[in-house]
Amino acid sequence: MSDGPRAAAGTICPLPALAHTHVLLGHGSGGKLTSELIEQLFLPAFRNPLLEKLDDHAVFSVDPSSDLRIAFTTDSFVVNPIFFPGGDIGQLAVNGTVNDLAMAGAEPLYLSAGFILEEGFPMDDLRRVVLSMADASARAGVAIATGDTKVVQRGKADGLFINTTGVGAIRRPETISAWNARPGDRVLVSGPIGEHGMAIMLARGALDMEVELASDTAPLASLVQAMLGATAGIHCLKDPTRGGVATVLNEIAQHSGVGIVVEEEQVPVRDEVRGACEILGIDPLYVANEGKLLALVAPEAAPAVLAAMRAHPDGQEAALIGVVTDKPRGRVLLRTPWGGLRVLDMLVGDPLPRIC
Amino acid sequence: MSDGPRAAAGTICPLPALAHTHVLLGHGSGGKLTSELIEQLFLPAFRNPLLEKLDDHAVFSVDPSSDLRIAFTTDSFVVNPIFFPGGDIGQLAVNGTVNDLAMAGAEPLYLSAGFILEEGFPMDDLRRVVLSMADASARAGVAIATGDTKVVQRGKADGLFINTTGVGAIRRPETISAWNARPGDRVLVSGPIGEHGMAIMLARGALDMEVELASDTAPLASLVQAMLGATAGIHCLKDPTRGGVATVLNEIAQHSGVGIVVEEEQVPVRDEVRGACEILGIDPLYVANEGKLLALVAPEAAPAVLAAMRAHPDGQEAALIGVVTDKPRGRVLLRTPWGGLRVLDMLVGDPLPRIC
Repeated sequence: MSDGPRAAAGTICPLPALAHTHVLLGHGSGGKLTSELIEQLFLPAFRNPLLEKLDDHAVFSVDPSSDLRIAFTTDSFVVNPIFFPGGDIGQLAVNGTVNDLAMAGAEPLYLSAGFILEEGFPMDDLRRVVLSMADASARAGVAIATGDTKVVQRGKADGLFINTTGVGAIRRPETISAWNARPGDRVLVSGPIGEHGMAIMLARGALDMEVELASDTAPLASLVQAMLGATAGIHCLKDPTRGGVATVLNEIAQHSGVGIVVEEEQVPVRDEVRGACEILGIDPLYVANEGKLLALVAPEAAPAVLAAMRAHPDGQEAALIGVVTDKPRGRVLLRTPWGGLRVLDMLVGDPLPRIC
Repeated sequence: MSDGPRAAAGTICPLPALAHTHVLLGHGSGGKLTSELIEQLFLPAFRNPLLEKLDDHAVFSVDPSSDLRIAFTTDSFVVNPIFFPGGDIGQLAVNGTVNDLAMAGAEPLYLSAGFILEEGFPMDDLRRVVLSMADASARAGVAIATGDTKVVQRGKADGLFINTTGVGAIRRPETISAWNARPGDRVLVSGPIGEHGMAIMLARGALDMEVELASDTAPLASLVQAMLGATAGIHCLKDPTRGGVATVLNEIAQHSGVGIVVEEEQVPVRDEVRGACEILGIDPLYVANEGKLLALVAPEAAPAVLAAMRAHPDGQEAALIGVVTDKPRGRVLLRTPWGGLRVLDMLVGDPLPRIC
């Protein structure tokens, strides 16, 4: 973070100058431009200790007499197309927010659902999405407790956008956060990466091939509870959605002030995803996942966490893919199969807009 | 509510047949079509005790050992234009959600903010909206604790949509709900109605006249705390936004199984609003407000509540406008200045789309 926003702490003006005069697709990529927007605009304007964490969730107490903490998180879903192999926007909207709560170590409790509909949207499609949300909520054990519906004129939206916001209960004392990674921590991933992003590209017709690819969209709260139950020593959990594994590890490295070295050969990628990525010229490390998590855990806890992951249906292909180092602070390095080390940066631009 | 959804309790299928094959603007009006969509689709699919209340907020406990209850509410804002006399979409997004919490008798604590931006949206406009949200949050005493930004391609949204979702703390034992009105209750309104809707129409150029009209957008939590502090006996609070006073009173009448008689002459309406409504052929009772509330209170509590409202800067022009009756159940009647009684129905269609 630059000194600009820090200097503005406690005030809402002056804001630092913005680097762009107009919103670009990349501002929604989850990568570098999204970070810039947050650090140059949202954070200085709204500054408060919760938002400053820059996690995908806020954690707070509502009752000083209780140890229970609340996790709170929001996501809008604009995925295109709304139906794709392995899921749809409704399932994504429920699982995405459930997962942001789970990454705080929280038990997901309640969701809100805000629909923005384009006039003329087929009611049968809306019904299909809503039933899919109901099904995903039941599977994740959350209730959709409140909602809102807005309709805009034809041509003023793209069919259907959904916001879900979630509330969860943190009943354990540990703080799990992107600010908590420590040198020596092991980096675990819960399974093969890149499936969601490539399933969306398939649904868009970007891949001129017959290929079996489906989104990995899934609720991860149960897997997280199994991991937390196995051992202490889980420092950080993140689901590598927009921007993929590379971007999320960069965020963790920056927030925690550590380096991270990823062993490229250890990162699980299915052949179908690898092939599709090659055709499109995209590195799977930058492709969105919707049912995978990264865990940064103390070295002595890593075997127990990995075993707990592999014993769970949503983590059977979990793998150890890297290690946290003290240098270079704030950077991620990739060790290639040939032994070389190269810098793995955050996502720049947005090769796959509207992936979620 | 028909028997259809009730019969489906606990299951997600079969859903009742929907009355329309495609989404209409009226499904976002807050009136009759919105109710149909909720009762025929969202409620049967998501059915749970919180959602069944059909309030603008859900209320739940997170810690059985504590008396504290949480209020949770969501709203998406698609107002057009985004800047209008008296406010903008950012201020509306903060105040609207703060007010939905306040109507549960809750102290607003935290908001989430989800932005959907259209590629090419001017960054200066975004900055202006964000600063306006920061200002409104500070005034209402809430923190924007977490957020999300998505960007869609040019032509796939209309500049800027904002979802805000709020969490508040209910520290009093009373249940304040649209299901709680009782025969004999007095109906109070906190000030003159119709200002927000007419300010939007002015901003759209629909009024070919020079007129001093500004949105009434304001946070109402402080007014509500003053009212609750004055006396017990407040049964129901509602802010008459989309669909206006007439629609909101119909919801209360239906949920509480009571009748409501409104004295047309007692309803405060500024001359400018009355004039604008006459030109547009719209009844001010159906026009959205964003800084007013309706309170249904026990008859013996009414004088104290009215006095507390009038002593507060946001309720100086509060008025007693009607009474709750035991019949006709579920209906609202309007007594005209000439002494006649006519049925005041919910809003049908949507004469003022994208008012919030």
